[in-house]
Amino acid sequence: MVIAESIPTLLQQARTGTHICRIKCVMTSSASLMQTPAQNFCRQCGQTVETRVPPGDSLPRQCCNHCGTIHYENPKMVLGTLAVWEDKVLLCRRAIEPRYGLWTLPAGFMENSETTAEAAQRETDEEAGAQIEMLDLYTLISVPHISQIHGFYRARLLSPDFNPGEETLEARLFAEAEIPWEELAFRTVRQTLQHYFADRKTGHYPFRSFDIIGPPPK
Amino acid sequence: MVIAESIPTLLQQARTGTHICRIKCVMTSSASLMQTPAQNFCRQCGQTVETRVPPGDSLPRQCCNHCGTIHYENPKMVLGTLAVWEDKVLLCRRAIEPRYGLWTLPAGFMENSETTAEAAQRETDEEAGAQIEMLDLYTLISVPHISQIHGFYRARLLSPDFNPGEETLEARLFAEAEIPWEELAFRTVRQTLQHYFADRKTGHYPFRSFDIIGPPPK
Repeated sequence: MVIAESIPTLLQQARTGTHICRIKCVMTSSASLMQTPAQNFCRQCGQTVETRVPPGDSLPRQCCNHCGTIHYENPKMVLGTLAVWEDKVLLCRRAIEPRYGLWTLPAGFMENSETTAEAAQRETDEEAGAQIEMLDLYTLISVPHISQIHGFYRARLLSPDFNPGEETLEARLFAEAEIPWEELAFRTVRQTLQHYFADRKTGHYPFRSFDIIGPPPK
Repeated sequence: MVIAESIPTLLQQARTGTHICRIKCVMTSSASLMQTPAQNFCRQCGQTVETRVPPGDSLPRQCCNHCGTIHYENPKMVLGTLAVWEDKVLLCRRAIEPRYGLWTLPAGFMENSETTAEAAQRETDEEAGAQIEMLDLYTLISVPHISQIHGFYRARLLSPDFNPGEETLEARLFAEAEIPWEELAFRTVRQTLQHYFADRKTGHYPFRSFDIIGPPPK
């Protein structure tokens, strides 16, 4: 799971300023965390772009005055699983930044040409080397300050044996009492786990859609 | 709602070919429908990019050999509402391509810095000028051949008066027997409506997540 929680977006900046801003877009730091490099040049023709509200639009976009291309930026989906073996949940310890060394449910950016379930299953295989049977989508969480939506499927592990990939230091099963709550990488993971353990008492796992607004307290 | 249903993606092309392809990326037609213009040049430094699998990755990406930027492409979310007044559903007749003149639930691309519910409500306002009370997320539909995920919330109309925006020829309420099934713009709209009218018989509207695989028959 690649994620960033502290980078102001161009749109946020634009909404708090004038609606028509002709400054050149500069988004430098931590681009790799966002998967969104700075948009200085037109991807179609290579000329510089400027930020303005196109005709008929209401938000500033990065526009090419040479070929007319408008470059839209949209939120990204992160999909993963809450995979269970007996009474235990699979967590992965991150071998990459951000949150190196902290624990997460296996998850990552959805790729083009996938379904949400395929993305969740692929990420579980890539990060944990875990074989699973997919169950229902369980949580869908908007995280607007980083322009992401995180979705977690419940899943059944077909084996307690894992083969972690390069992004994972360790893949391990945790009983509820063993969950490293203070060492979880992301709030979407924490809240999904909290809902899961509460729902498990009833045996009923309703789909849950909610938001996490703003960066975490420091 | 902007959408395209027939454009093969770079990833699809790459998956059926070699994993390391050094051809220059050329995606021309209908870029505006996809909101995804051709990626010929690096958005960060303006140099040409090449398509190859970066180290540690498993899929081809558009890579800049000059500044090292890797340009990821990810699916886009389309959010909308199924908004109801008494026993009638709000539909909008499209004033834009694709599917000009056909009927849709109000929906469109989620913007950065929004929640999914905010996106659905904004699109309903922009396309229909409809004032609504948002209810639960009802359908979430992967459409992998166009790398989109469509989500529809149920909503309650606060008034039967509309003020359609530029993308809408007409906003109108339809009873079940009046739905123009043969003139609906998108299969995600059709299937959401079908589920809704079936569920309405029971008064119970469970969340539904499913996929629509492949383009529609011609």
